[in-house]
Amino acid sequence: MDLELANRLATASNTKIILCVLDGLGGLPRTETQRSELEQADTPNLDRLAKRSEVGLTVPVGPGITPGSGPGHLALFGYDPYRYDIGRGVLEAVGIDFDLGPDDVAARGNFCTLDAGGNITDRRAGRVATERSAALVERLRGIRLNGAEVLVEPVREHRFVLVLRGKGLGDAVSTTDPQKTGVQPLLAVAGNDGSARTAALVNEFVTRAREVLSNEEKANGLVLRGFAKYPDLPQFPRVWKLRAAALAVYPMYRGLARLAGMDALPCPGGIDDQLRTIRERWNDYDYFFVHYKYTDAAGEDGDFERKCHMVEQFDRRLPEFLDLGADVFMIAGDHSTPALMAAHSWHPVPFMLHSQYCRQGFAEHFNERECVRGSLGTFPAVDVMPLAMGHAGRFEKYGA
Amino acid sequence: MDLELANRLATASNTKIILCVLDGLGGLPRTETQRSELEQADTPNLDRLAKRSEVGLTVPVGPGITPGSGPGHLALFGYDPYRYDIGRGVLEAVGIDFDLGPDDVAARGNFCTLDAGGNITDRRAGRVATERSAALVERLRGIRLNGAEVLVEPVREHRFVLVLRGKGLGDAVSTTDPQKTGVQPLLAVAGNDGSARTAALVNEFVTRAREVLSNEEKANGLVLRGFAKYPDLPQFPRVWKLRAAALAVYPMYRGLARLAGMDALPCPGGIDDQLRTIRERWNDYDYFFVHYKYTDAAGEDGDFERKCHMVEQFDRRLPEFLDLGADVFMIAGDHSTPALMAAHSWHPVPFMLHSQYCRQGFAEHFNERECVRGSLGTFPAVDVMPLAMGHAGRFEKYGA
Repeated sequence: MDLELANRLATASNTKIILCVLDGLGGLPRTETQRSELEQADTPNLDRLAKRSEVGLTVPVGPGITPGSGPGHLALFGYDPYRYDIGRGVLEAVGIDFDLGPDDVAARGNFCTLDAGGNITDRRAGRVATERSAALVERLRGIRLNGAEVLVEPVREHRFVLVLRGKGLGDAVSTTDPQKTGVQPLLAVAGNDGSARTAALVNEFVTRAREVLSNEEKANGLVLRGFAKYPDLPQFPRVWKLRAAALAVYPMYRGLARLAGMDALPCPGGIDDQLRTIRERWNDYDYFFVHYKYTDAAGEDGDFERKCHMVEQFDRRLPEFLDLGADVFMIAGDHSTPALMAAHSWHPVPFMLHSQYCRQGFAEHFNERECVRGSLGTFPAVDVMPLAMGHAGRFEKYGA
Repeated sequence: MDLELANRLATASNTKIILCVLDGLGGLPRTETQRSELEQADTPNLDRLAKRSEVGLTVPVGPGITPGSGPGHLALFGYDPYRYDIGRGVLEAVGIDFDLGPDDVAARGNFCTLDAGGNITDRRAGRVATERSAALVERLRGIRLNGAEVLVEPVREHRFVLVLRGKGLGDAVSTTDPQKTGVQPLLAVAGNDGSARTAALVNEFVTRAREVLSNEEKANGLVLRGFAKYPDLPQFPRVWKLRAAALAVYPMYRGLARLAGMDALPCPGGIDDQLRTIRERWNDYDYFFVHYKYTDAAGEDGDFERKCHMVEQFDRRLPEFLDLGADVFMIAGDHSTPALMAAHSWHPVPFMLHSQYCRQGFAEHFNERECVRGSLGTFPAVDVMPLAMGHAGRFEKYGA
């Protein structure tokens, strides 16, 4: 829904909302059994909750569209994923806990291998080792540009983040990555006047980096893509009038939540830390976003059994989350990651919402098949927030 | 749908459409029985009709959004409730059958109690008796303003309607109601240039009213809110090419229908009058909106049994409505009013449409649970009109 309207309807209350995101929750049936991960997993607690909850399937972005982690989560936080787009560079930066500011333009960088003619022969520089990559990044930090500070941070293997910091730098800059070998990296080109200086700085950086890396055997070049500034997201706590906390182990999800204006509370130890922190900070927040990564990781690895196991592991801890006593308790996924595909997918994602105002009794088990026939049907993930606000008694009546 | 397109597709025909709105139709299951009002009520006629109708659930405004009566009905009449918003003052005025004109700005007024310092001590003036209130209104009518006629009408208890009538008066005027006690009423402030004169007139009216009411013990002050002009609604009969009649007992719903351009036919005696009037005027109209208030009233009172009873009362008369022989016959609600919540709610509302062109056999009973799985699924209430037009053979083919 329109966030201005959401803000107008949002009203103060002392109700609590918990959103548990099981990353990559949705799956697909295995041919042998015709059962999906959720259908095979033994989940007595999720099933019991599903019986007395509103259930349905969320469409993260749109039919057939496979979302990255950014849009998948933004939609669940109530942001139209078509309208609010977070650039790759920014996601990469927040994903390593980089403290991005309003004067920064971030880009995702890859070391690559160039031949004598300057053509790319390996787009990942032989997946250069992480430690070696860090040493190269250290050398890139020595590059000085006129009019912008150069910040470079290693990520993993051939990946790094470049941040140009300077007043008035636009981020409409084209990629330098031709996405194939046998050709030279591209020149960065500005997409608008305000980004002309950025493009020039990028090209100068690349030239200087080639000099710095010239003696490297593998990582003697680099490509940059996803130039992006800190996104101008309406801040979640202001829009929805909810003091919001994020409980995520992985930096990418903490970063996403912080971009939306949530407080990212430390919980390095996983579910134990998440539960303890929610209990300790119960009175300080109205909304808790809990992130559970392991379902997605197993799906990405194509490991059907492990994905089932990871769902079961969450199921075992579900009663402790329910004992917190939230007025609105939701289980969602940011997207599907069917083990069958070993990748994110576009398939709608099982969802349930429990409150005291539920149309219930639509599902005996929490899985794709039963959620299709649930009281919520198949609906856009961006509707999750208004739905939660209604159930939490946090929306005023619309119109007289 | 876009009303320009609706108008372009709408075509002449001699088919008849009846829409019966059971106000606040949707409900929630009671904990003891897990049955909603519609599931508990004994409704053989509604059930029989549901079996051979298209069934589904309407979302009045949007997910999680609880509508007032205005948006709930406007959506069923085909108006996008986000786009067409009717101000509180106008609804209040049409709700007492006040004949609002294009030069009128209407506001909802409350008498209140002020202390010696001018601070509000009771926002409802001790719920001053209706007769007393009418006498005070009579005195307010004596106020003369320069540049606008002052019209004041009593409503009930502490409530009244103020109408300022004058050329070129804007309605972007802020409330004078601080919505709390212990503070003074607010000054009216104009939200745009065209409303500056209105705001000044309002403030002058309030000052003069304070003098007029100064000897009152309880109702010695007043607050005004919901300033609004007659809404510029595209007229229903023109858009859909339907001669439209409204059959509603309560003034608010007659008023809403009149705002949309329908003829409000008198039917003070309820269903008997509604049926008789439709029969008498059958050849004069193509579309009949029938309003049944009692389901909502029982829901608002939190009276589960009475709401069931009111559904059953309607069910007993359903055969007479069907005997009228409309080509398209619909049962809808403007919103849910679960007895469990004793208030309007955001939950989707059971809906059915009967014509000779139905995909049928989806429901054995007319209730929330079976409508979820109906041929229409869960869909926006604003789609009801185009659906009816299709079934009535009143839409031309779109495109070649």
